[in-house]
Amino acid sequence: MGELLTTTNGWPTTAPGSPGHLLQLLREGAASTRPQLVELSGISRTAVSQRVDALLAAGLVVQDGAGASTGGRPAVRLRFNHDHGLVLVADLGATHARLAVTDLAGELLVERAEDRAIAEGPGPVLDWVRAGFEQLLDELGRGRADVRGIGIGLPGPVEHGSGRAVSPPIMPGWDGYPVPAHFADYDVPVLVDNDVNIMALGEYWAAWRHEVDDLLFIKVGTGIGCGVIASGRVHRGAQGAAGDLGHVRVPGADDALCRCGNTGCVEAVAGGQAIAERLRSLGSSARDARDVVNLVLAGDREATRAVREAGRELGAVLAAAVNFFNPAVIVIGGDMANAHEQLLAGVREVVYRRSLPLATRHLRVVPAQLGDRAGITGASAMVLAEVLAPGAVDRLVNGVT
Amino acid sequence: MGELLTTTNGWPTTAPGSPGHLLQLLREGAASTRPQLVELSGISRTAVSQRVDALLAAGLVVQDGAGASTGGRPAVRLRFNHDHGLVLVADLGATHARLAVTDLAGELLVERAEDRAIAEGPGPVLDWVRAGFEQLLDELGRGRADVRGIGIGLPGPVEHGSGRAVSPPIMPGWDGYPVPAHFADYDVPVLVDNDVNIMALGEYWAAWRHEVDDLLFIKVGTGIGCGVIASGRVHRGAQGAAGDLGHVRVPGADDALCRCGNTGCVEAVAGGQAIAERLRSLGSSARDARDVVNLVLAGDREATRAVREAGRELGAVLAAAVNFFNPAVIVIGGDMANAHEQLLAGVREVVYRRSLPLATRHLRVVPAQLGDRAGITGASAMVLAEVLAPGAVDRLVNGVT
Repeated sequence: MGELLTTTNGWPTTAPGSPGHLLQLLREGAASTRPQLVELSGISRTAVSQRVDALLAAGLVVQDGAGASTGGRPAVRLRFNHDHGLVLVADLGATHARLAVTDLAGELLVERAEDRAIAEGPGPVLDWVRAGFEQLLDELGRGRADVRGIGIGLPGPVEHGSGRAVSPPIMPGWDGYPVPAHFADYDVPVLVDNDVNIMALGEYWAAWRHEVDDLLFIKVGTGIGCGVIASGRVHRGAQGAAGDLGHVRVPGADDALCRCGNTGCVEAVAGGQAIAERLRSLGSSARDARDVVNLVLAGDREATRAVREAGRELGAVLAAAVNFFNPAVIVIGGDMANAHEQLLAGVREVVYRRSLPLATRHLRVVPAQLGDRAGITGASAMVLAEVLAPGAVDRLVNGVT
Repeated sequence: MGELLTTTNGWPTTAPGSPGHLLQLLREGAASTRPQLVELSGISRTAVSQRVDALLAAGLVVQDGAGASTGGRPAVRLRFNHDHGLVLVADLGATHARLAVTDLAGELLVERAEDRAIAEGPGPVLDWVRAGFEQLLDELGRGRADVRGIGIGLPGPVEHGSGRAVSPPIMPGWDGYPVPAHFADYDVPVLVDNDVNIMALGEYWAAWRHEVDDLLFIKVGTGIGCGVIASGRVHRGAQGAAGDLGHVRVPGADDALCRCGNTGCVEAVAGGQAIAERLRSLGSSARDARDVVNLVLAGDREATRAVREAGRELGAVLAAAVNFFNPAVIVIGGDMANAHEQLLAGVREVVYRRSLPLATRHLRVVPAQLGDRAGITGASAMVLAEVLAPGAVDRLVNGVT
């Protein structure tokens, strides 16, 4: 009988040889000709031919003329038409926002970044996002009709199914606000998630999806957050609260008061804000995570020691997560990761000492690669996973809604 | 375009209206007539009719005569033919083994349990399993041709893809042994996983799969293990090592030496063996987890206090797992769970104090329901998820292999 049919990155797919499945083979570069599609899908030449015609008619696939010969006459080369539509994405942070437009391959076409306080509330912020999207579309000479989906990241807990923020601590006025409704006139899927989840998905999508299934992304900035990729997908948990590593208790820190109201949370000893405060108590002028990083890069000994120690504290929490979740990769990002040599050294030291040998045998602990673009990359990937899911493509091509 | 097509319990499914999808609707009780299948699948009456005929011809579906009227003439009632085949399962523990045969609905038809040491090695143990399977089939008056799959649980880490044990600490001779090869002559899928994973799947399948997606099963016996259900499936992690909560460090226990070689592991302070040792040092005669449970049930004050405290230690580790994973349910099983009132009280006390409000808002911490049968129930569910996966059914019905 055989295995479940899944893609290399774990997304569910449809029956072998369905139009959506064939498109996926083309998108992932597994096939680029009809004979290859026949071989990989196991369906007949006639069926492949009909379904490729449907994908060509829908504009999702284009032909590039003659390709590599397969014995007799040369096969026509097929490729996914990543210009067939656009994705609008916004990564909204506490004080900073980034907007972008990508194509259907997730390629960044145009972007803008601005200081913008999320605390202005959903009306003003989302109006600004709308206006920004329109301007970016203008710059590209494209219009609303080209948009296939919208992806938005928020700096707080989000109920992914409905796209509403849930009791977000730093977002006054946003609690329960239905973000997708603000873009209803686009008539495309509008997906919302928290910023750490989309950063995790962005790093995974850009660098790891062809290699591994399970990954943790740790954002170390003012606080500490975590995005969990399980079997190639964001794991959100029962209330969308998964990944809250920042408030796990670390041993021996019972006097550290955390902004969450508990004591001893790892964020209260190893977050950027906590480190800056400790350095200030030693006479430094560090105000925040960025100042701490600058001190480390300038060779300040106390700052270096503090970041290394923060890495160890974080490592103690990650060791438990490694035993529990057994990820293949841990990616460390966020502002503090700009001092990644010291931070990663501390993390690795404790993770490899405290986790089980089987779980760390092939574990990699690496710095993030996308920097400030992780969020918009992930927001686009989130949208593409939905609008190009094989089932969605099948329904589109078959005219079923 | 819309959402990904997934079942209520998260398993990927195929194109809407494929034979495998229709069978799934019948299996889950979502539909029991052709008109209902038309409504739920969105495909035409003719297409439903053809595909149901194929499922009838394959023996996977049977007709039960007239069903509920839908306006005009009564609709014929369809149901999944759970007698169309059998699943053979074995739950092999350190010193005890249980064999069973289930139908295709996971219903237990016949079973046997025996003391049998896994340390006898793979040859003798698996020969005994084979002989036991044959006898159970004889008892049922059925034969090998009825068997659709085999599921086996082992008391150690397993590489699920290949069905091999990986450096199992208490299984001499098993390291790397290809368990499925021992049953190759059955010519059916042979799936192997570790005992805690199949227990987790068993409890999930029997009691929770229609309600929740994310669940943790904690086995508290001699040691402490954890099975992780994420989006309705067993999360195994990169090396199949996920769920190893027993060796997470707890604060203030640095002098507790664990059998893993580290100190301060939760298993070394809260496992059944550790509690028995502590009670012995206080003059008790408790040798193991079962003795501890008997003392608690007899009202022994020291034992009761020790189990409650063990629950708190376990709770500290689970609080971190709750923040990280945000499960909907935590099920506590294993021998120690027979003293579940004290154990769960300790766990709840700390989990609800230390986890974030959003993650615990609807969290339930409950005792296991299946007792010694969790393993065989889960082993059967593991096999059924594969052999009745929509893709597998589509291939079977379409004659594609």
